[in-house]
Amino acid sequence: MTHSRQPTAAGVALAARKVAELLPLTPLLPLEVDGRTIWCKAESLQPVGAFKIRGAWHRLTDLTEAERARGVVGVSSGNHAQGVAWAARRLGIAATIVMPLDAPEVKLANTRALGAEVVLYDRPGGEDRDAVAQRLCAQRGATLVHAYGDPWIIEGQGSVGIEIAAQMRAQAGVAPDLIVVPCGGGGLTGGIALACPDARIVPVEPEGWDDVRRSLATGHIERVAADAPPTACDALQTPATWPINFAILQARCPFGLAVTPAEVRAAQRLAFAKLRLVLEPGGAAALAAVLAGKVETTDRTALVLSGGNTDAAAFARVLSTAD
Amino acid sequence: MTHSRQPTAAGVALAARKVAELLPLTPLLPLEVDGRTIWCKAESLQPVGAFKIRGAWHRLTDLTEAERARGVVGVSSGNHAQGVAWAARRLGIAATIVMPLDAPEVKLANTRALGAEVVLYDRPGGEDRDAVAQRLCAQRGATLVHAYGDPWIIEGQGSVGIEIAAQMRAQAGVAPDLIVVPCGGGGLTGGIALACPDARIVPVEPEGWDDVRRSLATGHIERVAADAPPTACDALQTPATWPINFAILQARCPFGLAVTPAEVRAAQRLAFAKLRLVLEPGGAAALAAVLAGKVETTDRTALVLSGGNTDAAAFARVLSTAD
Repeated sequence: MTHSRQPTAAGVALAARKVAELLPLTPLLPLEVDGRTIWCKAESLQPVGAFKIRGAWHRLTDLTEAERARGVVGVSSGNHAQGVAWAARRLGIAATIVMPLDAPEVKLANTRALGAEVVLYDRPGGEDRDAVAQRLCAQRGATLVHAYGDPWIIEGQGSVGIEIAAQMRAQAGVAPDLIVVPCGGGGLTGGIALACPDARIVPVEPEGWDDVRRSLATGHIERVAADAPPTACDALQTPATWPINFAILQARCPFGLAVTPAEVRAAQRLAFAKLRLVLEPGGAAALAAVLAGKVETTDRTALVLSGGNTDAAAFARVLSTAD
Repeated sequence: MTHSRQPTAAGVALAARKVAELLPLTPLLPLEVDGRTIWCKAESLQPVGAFKIRGAWHRLTDLTEAERARGVVGVSSGNHAQGVAWAARRLGIAATIVMPLDAPEVKLANTRALGAEVVLYDRPGGEDRDAVAQRLCAQRGATLVHAYGDPWIIEGQGSVGIEIAAQMRAQAGVAPDLIVVPCGGGGLTGGIALACPDARIVPVEPEGWDDVRRSLATGHIERVAADAPPTACDALQTPATWPINFAILQARCPFGLAVTPAEVRAAQRLAFAKLRLVLEPGGAAALAAVLAGKVETTDRTALVLSGGNTDAAAFARVLSTAD
């Protein structure tokens, strides 16, 4: 798929202004890790429990009247779904979301509660979710709002970086020089890279779903293997990044990291005990990499806690696990 | 115990300025309850997991050099303990905290990790915790920093109210006309009453520990019964309010409310699912009262989520309970 334009730093700045008018500022919380303060951007506290509301708002507010009338279609395991549904409801736009059958119950329920129509597809069955979405768009004349391969989405998610930089200046008197980011398809990571041109950006993925890490290593877009292991990080379960994302990542991310399921659970438990935040597995990936010592932190390190939509039973199991 | 001065609105405003220089602003999160937006002040996101850091900071920063050198003594089930320990460490003051033997493990561990000396007392054994603290103060020449019966503590906690009012104006364009507050001894409730003279203030206590509710009803200070039932709301487990608090509460709170253990658990689960916040039982008391329909909300209602220090096993049990 091609786009009429590339995402820009100016677009990120515009998105940040739109978001600031709409949503309470999520806090940048200090966390001591090995005697050093790491600044944690709590995007799990957004109204839909994830940063995805940013890109969706930036995209949907830029549709024409005619486009609004024909509705939007999104594809998502749940957080982008809720972001699009939230923005669509607010703007009076019909939203259809293509979601995997095995999405967390809380994400399915929340997306429906926001008034969106949910169309399920079978992830393990190998159905291509983008193909399902494009068919729906063709049928309805609706606009596809891709979860990451879209210039508006990248710019919208980048507003997180604008806020991190402003809050770190206000709270610590410095600018971030390292930002660690949970990475699925590269929408958030790419947007933050545009927002913070002077910081190193490190994407973090779950083990086996580390296609961005491998893509950065080989220099071209790699796909997740067909036999990739199951992961609790459903929010980061994307088959491959898109060229519009990879162009930014390749220019700005020297390397990517992968974290294990046990490292993710440890991060969820630490966020529970020290930050009193509920994080979903994917939302804890960047924190997991920092806690596991997989990235050398600096005195100006920030990370994103990207989402908190997890089922109660799953979270209770993580709290009760000792690994 | 008498004090040299009464808490004032000007003192609250001063405390709010001191706190704004020190701590990241905690968010005021919108929550839909029965189709109405309720504004929730997430004090569980303070560095010590509770609002108590505010009063402790206001008090300790106002000690003379000679007083600082002799140290401070606090009495607390854990949140005030961590607030005093955090402020004392930051200012280089020795802190001793009198804590009950049955305080949550996480609160004992966090207080010690902040460098405070912990002196345990036996709550069911009937030992008077204030007497233990006053003996320690006499021995050491230290300053007693009471958890609620202290003008600085009341003013410091009142800074929550200053922030709620400012954030509601910025986010919703209105001033709060009703603020629902978890209440132990009345430090937070009294402070918010001073901060927000135009709002109705409703204190909420756990069933059986609703001495403030009864005191407001009878017009004089009532004590918790000796055979009060156990409560998970350790943060609100105070035997009686003090005159310095009651004078404000009586003037500003028409009534108080009590919530049941099941109502508190329901509030913890809702905060988990809809706000992605970890709340301790006492921290969820005001939300419990609103969800249970015990207070008639308005279009300008705020409530305080006062703390999030709970053991993982206890929280996992709450998530797994169906009541």
